[in-house]
Amino acid sequence: MSSCPSHGLMPIAQAQTRLEQAGRHQLLPVETISIYEALDRILAEDVIATLDVPPQANSAMDGYAVCCDKFCTQQPYVVSQRITAGVAPQPLLDGTVARIFTGAVIPEGANAVIMQEDAVVAADGTVSFVIQPDAYDNIRPQGQDIRQGTRILSQGTRLSPAAIGLLATIGHAKVNVYRRLKVMFFCTGNELVEPSQPLASGQIYNSNRALLASLLKKLDIDLIDGGVIPDNLEATLDALQQATQQADVIMTTGGVSVGEEDHVKAAVNQCGRLELWKIAIKPGKPLAFGYVHETPFLGLPGNPQSVFVTFAILARIFLINYQGQRDGLTPQFALIASDFAIKKAQTRTEYLRVKVVHGSDGLRLIKHDNQSSGVLSSAVWADGFAVIPAGQIVSQGDLLAFLSFSSLLLA
Amino acid sequence: MSSCPSHGLMPIAQAQTRLEQAGRHQLLPVETISIYEALDRILAEDVIATLDVPPQANSAMDGYAVCCDKFCTQQPYVVSQRITAGVAPQPLLDGTVARIFTGAVIPEGANAVIMQEDAVVAADGTVSFVIQPDAYDNIRPQGQDIRQGTRILSQGTRLSPAAIGLLATIGHAKVNVYRRLKVMFFCTGNELVEPSQPLASGQIYNSNRALLASLLKKLDIDLIDGGVIPDNLEATLDALQQATQQADVIMTTGGVSVGEEDHVKAAVNQCGRLELWKIAIKPGKPLAFGYVHETPFLGLPGNPQSVFVTFAILARIFLINYQGQRDGLTPQFALIASDFAIKKAQTRTEYLRVKVVHGSDGLRLIKHDNQSSGVLSSAVWADGFAVIPAGQIVSQGDLLAFLSFSSLLLA
Repeated sequence: MSSCPSHGLMPIAQAQTRLEQAGRHQLLPVETISIYEALDRILAEDVIATLDVPPQANSAMDGYAVCCDKFCTQQPYVVSQRITAGVAPQPLLDGTVARIFTGAVIPEGANAVIMQEDAVVAADGTVSFVIQPDAYDNIRPQGQDIRQGTRILSQGTRLSPAAIGLLATIGHAKVNVYRRLKVMFFCTGNELVEPSQPLASGQIYNSNRALLASLLKKLDIDLIDGGVIPDNLEATLDALQQATQQADVIMTTGGVSVGEEDHVKAAVNQCGRLELWKIAIKPGKPLAFGYVHETPFLGLPGNPQSVFVTFAILARIFLINYQGQRDGLTPQFALIASDFAIKKAQTRTEYLRVKVVHGSDGLRLIKHDNQSSGVLSSAVWADGFAVIPAGQIVSQGDLLAFLSFSSLLLA
Repeated sequence: MSSCPSHGLMPIAQAQTRLEQAGRHQLLPVETISIYEALDRILAEDVIATLDVPPQANSAMDGYAVCCDKFCTQQPYVVSQRITAGVAPQPLLDGTVARIFTGAVIPEGANAVIMQEDAVVAADGTVSFVIQPDAYDNIRPQGQDIRQGTRILSQGTRLSPAAIGLLATIGHAKVNVYRRLKVMFFCTGNELVEPSQPLASGQIYNSNRALLASLLKKLDIDLIDGGVIPDNLEATLDALQQATQQADVIMTTGGVSVGEEDHVKAAVNQCGRLELWKIAIKPGKPLAFGYVHETPFLGLPGNPQSVFVTFAILARIFLINYQGQRDGLTPQFALIASDFAIKKAQTRTEYLRVKVVHGSDGLRLIKHDNQSSGVLSSAVWADGFAVIPAGQIVSQGDLLAFLSFSSLLLA
């Protein structure tokens, strides 16, 4: 186990790098799907524009297509054609103008558009203009937006709404993407009871199952819910072995600390290999990474808040890389002033659940009272994490790195 | 039409307020669904905790449950029971200790847990301790995280992964949410051709259809794709009338400017009422809002980039309110230094497509070269919008309001 010598804990960045590297070994099959089904999927190819956009010069305004050369203001012009969007125009007759609408193709022989607000239509239908046009006025030239042959999207891009729109722009109805990642996940813990069932003494409701399922869905993962594994080695072994037949990745919550009652560690070691990382992250700390036979395995802690944080900061990095994503891997952070102080430095980097509020002197981060690892209330309330590096104290007004949940948890 | 007297344009904030107010008239039916299906749905009730969390005091550590009173370090103690998570403990026998694991219930008679690292187990199985415990050490008291009777989620909350987990924590297997919002949308424009079809002169590929479908999906909207309406009044009237039978909201792209070729405006006016807003937003400007019979209608511009911006900044506000959402309606913004200058003030507030980069002296916003309203390349490349208020110039280093796409476009 690689670790930071100072406290026997692995620095977060080191864990993130190892998870990213492991995730890059992904070899998901490629499939061809409709762009209408491709939102949030990962592009498996570079996309090269096969045409210019716009394909022909067109009008940026409703107005009149004219030829600037030998043009006279005040002179009445005959309107020799009417060009609407979608129509192929005729060449412009010498000494005439064409009525034209936004998006319509500029006729051969015209080299400017005068907007209709600068035109005066006479009773006989002729038009005169109050301004002298310059060449290319109000014309969007062919290829202005995209040049044929340009790479417009790169392999490994997660397809956003704008990216889907861009594929349509260049006429792509289908696109090659990686198959959706299949993750089978299990919860461990004899104390766990399904919601709506009665609670006996010693039992608690299983929140990790619903939490982890939701987190995985947000990443567009095809999830297989393995339910709760009973706290014994044999059942754990069975569950893991079966999962390798169905899933690309196996995940668990609980069962990876050093306690005698943690069977997941033993089971993975028996049919694969496991590293137990004690990471300098709070809440969180224990994270297991390994392989069941050849199937990657991620063991998250058992406390819901620790599941939330280790998923967002660590597991996510492995998963999105394994999905094939190669851009946007690092979440954006902002620097925002703290509205609280932390007097005692921690040995682990802490991910505080905070809210952004608009104060009189700008943005401020306020923190939830209860930062305990047991409960999700603070994560429901918060907008994101404030990152407090190990060994650091915080004074009110200090700028803290803020990671929004929306950039971390959503595909 | 209400408008800003200075340029005849409606300020963005005024348009946003009107859309929010109109969205609040929502009366979607309520349905009861499994929490496993409830991600991104809108809560139709306040949720009150019906139990304490944790339901009983439990151990925060693997270790030994002891009674602090009359406790002696060095003295060997008999381990009278072993309490694992999920098991109902026996009362602690006087003068003994109990082996206990993380999450296991504290037995009656014990009032502290000593972590196993501070215990020494003798060959005869008795245990002595190197520290003197204080009452409540390493104990998570009953109700520490949630008190029975507390409102833990409010009506109108969009259910995040953490909120779904929280519902499970208090034993809710089902939840009351609003029915998903049904939006039927159409594109207009005779020039539009479906991707993969051949392009004739004057034609362009329809990117708005794929773009708008994707934007709506991101908000968890149940979408009905009405395809392209031919550019004539009768077809437009037919399409809109049929949509009122199927959808809660009707949307269109294109056809709402003042041009002679825009039939959507005429059609909506004929079977409902329409306001055409010229909004001080760039790109964007024209936005139509009204009702077809009693069904709300939103008419977006025709340029893809204008669709993107008006959807994110304006239409979204109506849609999420109409879904029933009442929290998180205002997207978070950050203040980030500009890496570019804008010397000429605009009459409209501009939403520049920008990327956040990490420079040597902190975060910087860089802008895409091509901010034209025609193409989506800049929206694909960018992380979000930098908002440049109307009338303002920008010097390099100025702090700009940054709105990330992830906070704007994702549910």
